[in-house]
Amino acid sequence: MRDVAIVGAGMTRFGKFLEKSSKSLGQEAVQNALDDAGLQKSDIEAAIVGNAVGGLMTGQEMVRGQAILRPWGFGDIPIINTENACASSSTAFHLAWLYVASGMHDCVLALGVEKLYDEDKAKSFQAIGTAVDMELDAEAEAGAGETRTRFMDLYADAAKAHMEKYGTTVQQIAKVASKNHTNGSLNPYAQFRKPFSVEDVLQARMVADPLTLYMCSGIGDGGAATILCSAEKAKQLRTDPIWVRASAISSGHDRDGGEAAVADRTSKRAYEAAGIGPSDVDVVELHDAAAPAEISLVEELGFCAYGEGGPFAESGASQIDGDTPVNPSGGLMARGHPIGATGLGQLVEITWQLRGQAGDRQVKDAKVGLTHNAGGEIRGEAAVNTVHVLTR
Amino acid sequence: MRDVAIVGAGMTRFGKFLEKSSKSLGQEAVQNALDDAGLQKSDIEAAIVGNAVGGLMTGQEMVRGQAILRPWGFGDIPIINTENACASSSTAFHLAWLYVASGMHDCVLALGVEKLYDEDKAKSFQAIGTAVDMELDAEAEAGAGETRTRFMDLYADAAKAHMEKYGTTVQQIAKVASKNHTNGSLNPYAQFRKPFSVEDVLQARMVADPLTLYMCSGIGDGGAATILCSAEKAKQLRTDPIWVRASAISSGHDRDGGEAAVADRTSKRAYEAAGIGPSDVDVVELHDAAAPAEISLVEELGFCAYGEGGPFAESGASQIDGDTPVNPSGGLMARGHPIGATGLGQLVEITWQLRGQAGDRQVKDAKVGLTHNAGGEIRGEAAVNTVHVLTR
Repeated sequence: MRDVAIVGAGMTRFGKFLEKSSKSLGQEAVQNALDDAGLQKSDIEAAIVGNAVGGLMTGQEMVRGQAILRPWGFGDIPIINTENACASSSTAFHLAWLYVASGMHDCVLALGVEKLYDEDKAKSFQAIGTAVDMELDAEAEAGAGETRTRFMDLYADAAKAHMEKYGTTVQQIAKVASKNHTNGSLNPYAQFRKPFSVEDVLQARMVADPLTLYMCSGIGDGGAATILCSAEKAKQLRTDPIWVRASAISSGHDRDGGEAAVADRTSKRAYEAAGIGPSDVDVVELHDAAAPAEISLVEELGFCAYGEGGPFAESGASQIDGDTPVNPSGGLMARGHPIGATGLGQLVEITWQLRGQAGDRQVKDAKVGLTHNAGGEIRGEAAVNTVHVLTR
Repeated sequence: MRDVAIVGAGMTRFGKFLEKSSKSLGQEAVQNALDDAGLQKSDIEAAIVGNAVGGLMTGQEMVRGQAILRPWGFGDIPIINTENACASSSTAFHLAWLYVASGMHDCVLALGVEKLYDEDKAKSFQAIGTAVDMELDAEAEAGAGETRTRFMDLYADAAKAHMEKYGTTVQQIAKVASKNHTNGSLNPYAQFRKPFSVEDVLQARMVADPLTLYMCSGIGDGGAATILCSAEKAKQLRTDPIWVRASAISSGHDRDGGEAAVADRTSKRAYEAAGIGPSDVDVVELHDAAAPAEISLVEELGFCAYGEGGPFAESGASQIDGDTPVNPSGGLMARGHPIGATGLGQLVEITWQLRGQAGDRQVKDAKVGLTHNAGGEIRGEAAVNTVHVLTR
């Protein structure tokens, strides 16, 4: 497999954009990535487009990427639509990487886009509720409440289990939320830019005990894109390409085998492929759909021992100026979670961090970055996990 | 890129199965492919799943493949969902091929599945109508009639243009339909198994002038699957692997450049990759969503000159015993068109033909096969085209 570099990265601000369409959000993200790379539409040889609920939210099924790219002036290139719940666009990135790594193409676009806000709010929550096995899960089909999906119940249950097993405290969970909202306040691309103290987080409205509102990601609209090239082409384009050292994808715990959590196993494969270990990672974007998920994930990704995720957060290790900064962008909680755009949003952030372009939220001298993106749920297990390792 | 072989091929019969779900159809197809290969679920290292309208028809979005495979006993493997309209599952095959060709995996499943029949027939037609740019195409959004989608209007317009330009006759178009329905009558996997004469076809109800009912594909339910392996593994498994010599994918005419039709250009790339020409092809499955499409496509794929598609059909060249048998399975018209399963249905048929397992519809001594699958429409152009070349 060939070396693959990110030569262009761009995104929209994530947010509530009732007046914007999937098409306009997707095109804005792609244009930003093209401009960043100094490339034209005609330079792109193939495109992989991730989107999760466009069919349910906008009625655009089947040719979602073609509808965004073809009438806008992209030529007769392979365009492939991928749908993998909240990991749709990191899956798109994985396939774009595969196209270049295999030698099939030299310059490939990965786009993630999602339009979740709608005048009819219930429609959004119902759409998000389909990231499960609908047949197995009649509960999901019965629909979610007005203000949240059943996913927050799953995260609440996981949080309670972690607290019971390891003595993790609500204060530690609130510390994660406070950190991510504070990071988000520094990020012009973030949906929620208000910093919250640990006290603010604890005093917010309870969503699903022990999760308060500020511990939960919301819904959002947005687009994010990267352009991947072969090493040869990347070196022609810029002096600071960012290298994709590993692209790993898995689906769910393998409970039958009694093995470790999926993020543990997926990241081990990524570390092996990249030839590094967790201690080599300088900056992390991970799937904090709710604050306690970050506590479990720093353990599963190897940044601390199992059971130490709470104290890890409490110590400040995951702050922008800590030993292992986690979610400097604000994460899903503050940068926002337009589900089919989230994975590429993480990859764009890490690209900027490794280039030193992350402004007020810049992690000092970051050389190695990692993204972790999760999607969906089948029988209480994640349906998709992706882990990418990037280096400058 | 490494050599890639098909070691397992299986499908359901295509048809109207109100009592079956996407899940049961998908699992039946996969089980048939596993049995054919002599493999277990645990041998599969990754899966790509193509489906077009599951979200709209069944409410299962986001994790369609995971919902079929994970609770059924597939392990923690990468599962990627792809959606490319009527070419969804040949796109899945392309990605499975890429996984093996690149060296990333040694044994990969490609599954296509679709559930189009519903007690509410209007729902099916509305779902199919989304294979366009919904924003550009308000006409499509307004919904299609009770018994057909606007796609048949597009095919009727194309037929009229071909007749005017080249003198193609309605009788020649009816000859294609008669041939494919006759072939379908020999295929136990076909949805429609009644042979029709040219007269029968001409006398059937008019759907969209000049297309009669028997010149049009209908809707259907079904699943089809293949298992792709590296050469080394394939040779361990069986003495008659079928080799994938080319896997090409494109999106739409490049009208700005005034170039040839997309099937022309996509197939030229496939021929070049395979190191063959059209005259080397012994058996073809192509996207006859309506009979006149076959007449244009045999030209665009290089089996006869432009304008000669009508006489080519009339001559019997495309019959099972002709020089270039086309759609021995019955094609989309008779084998049926469960859209997300159609592409892999073609690949399964060609696999069986090259192995000499096609029963009453066997093409004699077929060594080289080609599939052409098309999907969607953006501004009057196909949104996706795939061409695969297989050899024994």
